[in-house]
Amino acid sequence: MEKISTDAFPLTMHSSEKQETICIFGTGDFGRSLGLKMLQCGYSIVFGSRTPRMSSLLPNGAEVMSYSDAAQKSDIIIIAVHREHYDFLTELTEVLNGKILVDVSNNLKINQYPESNAEYLAQLVPGTHVVKAFNTISAWALQSGALDASRQVFICGNDSKAKQRVMDVVRSLGLTPLDKGSLVAANEIENYPLQLFPMWKFPFYLSAVLCVFFFFYCVIREVIYPYVHEKRDRTFRLPISIPNRVFPIAALTLLALVYLPGVIAAILQLYRGTKYRRFPDWLDHWMLCRKQLGLIALGFAFLHVLYTLVIPIRYYVRWTWNNRTVTQAITKKEDPFSTTTSWLSDSYVALGMLGFFLFVLLGITSLPSVSNTVNWREFRFVQEYPESRGATMMMSSILGPEPNPPPSSNPKQSLDSALIKQ
Amino acid sequence: MEKISTDAFPLTMHSSEKQETICIFGTGDFGRSLGLKMLQCGYSIVFGSRTPRMSSLLPNGAEVMSYSDAAQKSDIIIIAVHREHYDFLTELTEVLNGKILVDVSNNLKINQYPESNAEYLAQLVPGTHVVKAFNTISAWALQSGALDASRQVFICGNDSKAKQRVMDVVRSLGLTPLDKGSLVAANEIENYPLQLFPMWKFPFYLSAVLCVFFFFYCVIREVIYPYVHEKRDRTFRLPISIPNRVFPIAALTLLALVYLPGVIAAILQLYRGTKYRRFPDWLDHWMLCRKQLGLIALGFAFLHVLYTLVIPIRYYVRWTWNNRTVTQAITKKEDPFSTTTSWLSDSYVALGMLGFFLFVLLGITSLPSVSNTVNWREFRFVQEYPESRGATMMMSSILGPEPNPPPSSNPKQSLDSALIKQ
Amino acid sequence: MEKISTDAFPLTMHSSEKQETICIFGTGDFGRSLGLKMLQCGYSIVFGSRTPRMSSLLPNGAEVMSYSDAAQKSDIIIIAVHREHYDFLTELTEVLNGKILVDVSNNLKINQYPESNAEYLAQLVPGTHVVKAFNTISAWALQSGALDASRQVFICGNDSKAKQRVMDVVRSLGLTPLDKGSLVAANEIENYPLQLFPMWKFPFYLSAVLCVFFFFYCVIREVIYPYVHEKRDRTFRLPISIPNRVFPIAALTLLALVYLPGVIAAILQLYRGTKYRRFPDWLDHWMLCRKQLGLIALGFAFLHVLYTLVIPIRYYVRWTWNNRTVTQAITKKEDPFSTTTSWLSDSYVALGMLGFFLFVLLGITSLPSVSNTVNWREFRFVQEYPESRGATMMMSSILGPEPNPPPSSNPKQSLDSALIKQ
Repeated sequence: MEKISTDAFPLTMHSSEKQETICIFGTGDFGRSLGLKMLQCGYSIVFGSRTPRMSSLLPNGAEVMSYSDAAQKSDIIIIAVHREHYDFLTELTEVLNGKILVDVSNNLKINQYPESNAEYLAQLVPGTHVVKAFNTISAWALQSGALDASRQVFICGNDSKAKQRVMDVVRSLGLTPLDKGSLVAANEIENYPLQLFPMWKFPFYLSAVLCVFFFFYCVIREVIYPYVHEKRDRTFRLPISIPNRVFPIAALTLLALVYLPGVIAAILQLYRGTKYRRFPDWLDHWMLCRKQLGLIALGFAFLHVLYTLVIPIRYYVRWTWNNRTVTQAITKKEDPFSTTTSWLSDSYVALGMLGFFLFVLLGITSLPSVSNTVNWREFRFVQEYPESRGATMMMSSILGPEPNPPPSSNPKQSLDSALIKQ
Repeated sequence: MEKISTDAFPLTMHSSEKQETICIFGTGDFGRSLGLKMLQCGYSIVFGSRTPRMSSLLPNGAEVMSYSDAAQKSDIIIIAVHREHYDFLTELTEVLNGKILVDVSNNLKINQYPESNAEYLAQLVPGTHVVKAFNTISAWALQSGALDASRQVFICGNDSKAKQRVMDVVRSLGLTPLDKGSLVAANEIENYPLQLFPMWKFPFYLSAVLCVFFFFYCVIREVIYPYVHEKRDRTFRLPISIPNRVFPIAALTLLALVYLPGVIAAILQLYRGTKYRRFPDWLDHWMLCRKQLGLIALGFAFLHVLYTLVIPIRYYVRWTWNNRTVTQAITKKEDPFSTTTSWLSDSYVALGMLGFFLFVLLGITSLPSVSNTVNWREFRFVQEYPESRGATMMMSSILGPEPNPPPSSNPKQSLDSALIKQ
Repeated sequence: MEKISTDAFPLTMHSSEKQETICIFGTGDFGRSLGLKMLQCGYSIVFGSRTPRMSSLLPNGAEVMSYSDAAQKSDIIIIAVHREHYDFLTELTEVLNGKILVDVSNNLKINQYPESNAEYLAQLVPGTHVVKAFNTISAWALQSGALDASRQVFICGNDSKAKQRVMDVVRSLGLTPLDKGSLVAANEIENYPLQLFPMWKFPFYLSAVLCVFFFFYCVIREVIYPYVHEKRDRTFRLPISIPNRVFPIAALTLLALVYLPGVIAAILQLYRGTKYRRFPDWLDHWMLCRKQLGLIALGFAFLHVLYTLVIPIRYYVRWTWNNRTVTQAITKKEDPFSTTTSWLSDSYVALGMLGFFLFVLLGITSLPSVSNTVNWREFRFVQEYPESRGATMMMSSILGPEPNPPPSSNPKQSLDSALIKQ
C-alpha cells in the first residue's frame, strides 16, 4: 500500500505541473467560494453536481460535470455537501478508490452525531484517503480576502501522504495548515468553530452578576439613602464615582476566586488521602477557567486605574477643591500639614500602583506566545508567587485602612471620598 | 527513487556521526558567517571556491577546495553565491547528482526574475534536490548572535527527505525551521525579506496626512487667528493642547475608515447582484489593511489618553485654576454647584474611558498569538460588535455634546477648553 | 527497514482501534499521573513494575504486571523511571526489540551527565526507537488539568515513524507536540525545564542594584540631609516622590546599557580588523540579554508614568497647591502668566509621553508572536531607529533642562519639585 500511495500521489507538485486540477463536489456557497479562491491561486477547478446543467453562479473558468466525470479529473476531491447528503458517494466507490476526499463539513450543534463527519465519510467510502480540512474557514472570509482572524486550517487524516498533498494546497492558498494527527481528531476539529469562548462563559456571567449587585448596593447606599433622608440629589455620582467603587471590588473578588479552587482542591485531596481521583465536575470546570477569571479581574483593575487617574479632571472634584480653598481664604485659616495623612495616602496609592504593575505583568505572561516561551518552573514562579504578593498588596491597599478610620487620617478619605463628598 | 533517497540520506543523523560535513559554495560574507556558525555548532565545514588558494578571512577550522572536490565531501551543499553566477554549477552536474542543494539567495527587488532563484537552480542542475532556506536570516545576525528578530527559517523543496535533513541542520543551529511546502513557495520566501511593512504603508501615509492637515487647521484657528486679531501670544498651546485635539480626530477618522470599506463592499455586491466577482483593486487593498488602520487609530487613542490624563499637571492649567480661585476668594463669590454640568462632564469622560477600554481589548485580540486561538465566530463577535459599540461611544463622547452647547453646561468646555482657555 | 517499520507501527491508529494499549514502566508519581491522564483519554494502560503485587495507589482500570509481560502488551513503552535505574532494561533487550521507548526523564542539574538520558537509553537498548517526550510537563499539571503554562511537548528522536506515533498520543491528550529533530536535541530538551529565566538573571540583579543605589542616594539627599541640617521631617517623600525619581533614572540607565554593547562590539571589530572572531564571553552574554534589559527598562518607564499621573491626587501635592492659593488670596497678589515656563513645562511633558509611546511600541514588537511576523529588515527598522529617537527624547526630557536652571522657568521644578517642595 505504501508503494502504491507513493506512486499515486507525488508528494509535492513539480513546478511543471502547476496547473493541478482539483475537483469540488457540491456547488453551494462554500464550494463556490473555495473554487473561486483556488482558481485565483492557479488551480484548475472541476465542479461535480447532481444537475450539472442547472448549476449557475459558478466562478468563471470552472467546469461543471456529473459527479463521476468530475471525480475522474483529479486526485483530490473536496466534498462540499452536507453530511445528510453523503449517501450518493456510496455509488461512486469505484471511481473514488485511492483518491483523497477532503471533508470540509461542519455541524449545527456540538457532538450532533455519534461519530465525526470525516470518520463517517471514511466508513462510507472505504478505499479512499479521507482528510479533514477547511472547516474552520468561513466562505465569507475566503471571498472578501478578509482573513484577519485565524489563517490556520486544522488538518487531520490517517494517511500522511494524503495529508501532505492537502497541506500543500492549503499553503498555496495563503493559509497555514496545522497537522492535528489522525482522523480521531476530526471530532474536535468539527466542534471547534461551534464554540463561542467556552471557557469565558462562566467568568463573564459571574462578573456581570458581581457588578450588578455591587452597583445597586452602592446606588442604594450613596444615592437613594441620601435622597430619602436628606433630599439631596446625588445622582451625579452614577457615571464615575460609583463605577469606580464597583470595579476594584469586582477585581479583588475575581482575583480571590482565581486562587480559591486551588485551595479547595488541596483540601479535598488531603481529605480523600489520594490525588488519583477526579475532582467533582464543578471544581474541574472552575479550575479550568481560572485564567479567564484572572484576565477579567485585570480588565476591572485597568478600568479602576483609568477612573482613578481621571479624578482631578472631573468637574465635581475641581468644584469641591476650589470651594474649600475659597472658604479657607475668606476665613483666613490655613490647613496644618499632617505627615501621618501624607504617609497613609501615599502608601495607599503606591501599593495600588505596584499591585497593578504586577497584575499587568501577569496578564502579559498569559498571552499565548509568551507563555509558550516559559517553561513550567518559570510559569509557576511568575503566576503563583508574585500574584499572591500583588494580591496582598492590593488587598491591603483596599481593605487595610478600612477598620476604624481615624477621622482625619483615613487615606481612603483623602484619596476619593474626602475630595468628592465634602 | 524513494528507496534510493532513503539510503542516500539517512533521515536523521545518529549520535555517533555528530561530526557531519557540510559544504558551502562561495566565500562571501554570508557563506563565511554561516560557516562560522556551523563550525561553532559542531559541524565540519568545507568551502568550495573558484580560487581556493586566494580565499582569505575564512573561519578557523574550515577547509577550502575547488568546487568539485568540496562537493564530494558532503551530501548537503549550500549555494552561497549570487544567482547571476549559478552558471558554473552546470559543469558540476555529475558530481552534484542526488545531492541536496540549499539555495540561500535573495534578490534586490521584488519579483526581479520570472522564476524564483531556487526554481531556476532546480532547472539548471537536474538530478539534485533543491531546498530553499536561510534567506531570511541576516549574516550580521548570525555573526553577532543577536537573533532577536525572527529565528524562523522558511524552508521549501520538492523532496521531503531533503527538507528533513536541512531542517535538522537548521534546528541544530538554534533556529526554528518552518516548512512552507513545495518549491513553488520559493518565490514568496524570496520576496519576504525585501518587504518593509507592505500593509502599513498606506495607513501610515494616510494618518500622517490627516495629522498634518488637522494640526495646521488647529494652529490657524487657535494660534494664528487670535494673534492676528487680538495680538495674544498663544503659541504655548502647540506642544500639548493642539496635539490633544488632533489625536482624537485622527483616531476617529481612521476608525471610520476601518469600517467604511466593508460597507462599500456590501453595497457593491448588492449593486452587482453577485459575490463572485473580484472587488476593484483599491477596495481590495483597503480591506486588507483595515487591521493596520485600526492599530494606528489605537495608537492615537492611547496618546489622547496620556495627553488628557496629564492635564492637571500642566503649568498652564494649574495657573488658570489657581487664578480663578484667587479671584473668587478676593471677590468673595462662590460658584454654585451645577448637577447638570457634573452629569455631562462625567458621562463624557466615562464614555471616553469605556471606549478606550474596548479599543484596547480589540488591540489585544489582534495580536497574532491571541487571534490564532480564537475561531472565526469568536473573532467576528469580538471585532465587529463591540468595536461598533465602542466607536459609537467614542463618537458620542466627542460629537454628541457638540451641537448647540449651552453656555455653561458644555462638558467639552469643562473638560478641556474651559480650564485652559479661561 | 523502511518496510518493516511501516508494518510494525501503522502510522496512525484507525478509528476501530481506538482502545490502543500503552505500557508505562515505573509506578512513581509521574508514571501514575500520565497513566491516569491517558486512561481518561481512552487508552488502555499497562504498568510495568519490579514488584507488581506491591504497587498500590494506581489509577483504577490500569493493569500492573512484570516488566517483560507489560512490554509485550504494547508497541509504545514509556520509561518513567530515573536514569540511575535504567540498567534493568538491558535484560529486556529481546522483548523491547523494535518497540518505541519514550524517555520522559529529567535531571536535577544542567548537563549532569556527559550524554543526554535519551541518548544513553538508546545506547543501552539497541534495536529500539527512542523518542524523548513529556519531560517538560509536570505531574501536578497533568493531574489537576491546570495546563495553563505551556501545553507544548518537545519531541525528538531518530525514527520519524516512531516520532509520529508519539506525537499522535501527545495530541490525543490535548497537548501540542513540537518536533525538535533528531535525538541530538534531547540534551537541550532535558536542560529546558531546569532553567529559571536564564537570560533574565543578569538584567534583574543589575536593575536591583541600580534601584537600591539610587534609592539610598535620594534618601540621603532628600530625607536625611534636610533632617540633620534643618530638623525637618521629610520621610513622607519615601513612598512616592523618591521612587518616582529612581524609576526614570533606572529606565534610562538600562536603556543605555541596551545600546552600549553594540557600540563596544563595533569598536572591537574595527580594532581587530575582522568580524570572524568570537567576542569575549562577557560581551556575548551582554548582547544576548539586551532584550531583557530593554523590557525591564520599559517596566520602570511604565511605573514612572503611573507615579507621575498620580501626582495631582496625592494629599501632599493638593495641600501644597491649596496653601499657595490661600496665601495668594490673602495677600491679594496674582501670579503673572509666564509663556516661557508654559512652553518648557509642556515640551518636557510632551517629549516624555512621546518617548513612552515609542517605548511601548518597541515592547509590543518584542512579543514573540509579533516579532515572528516581521522580517529582519522590518525588525531593524523598528528596533533601532525609533528607539534611538525615543531615547534621545526621553534623555532630553530628563537631562536637557537640567544645566543652569533659571529660577522660575525650570520645567522640572514646575512639574514635580516646585509643587511638592514648596
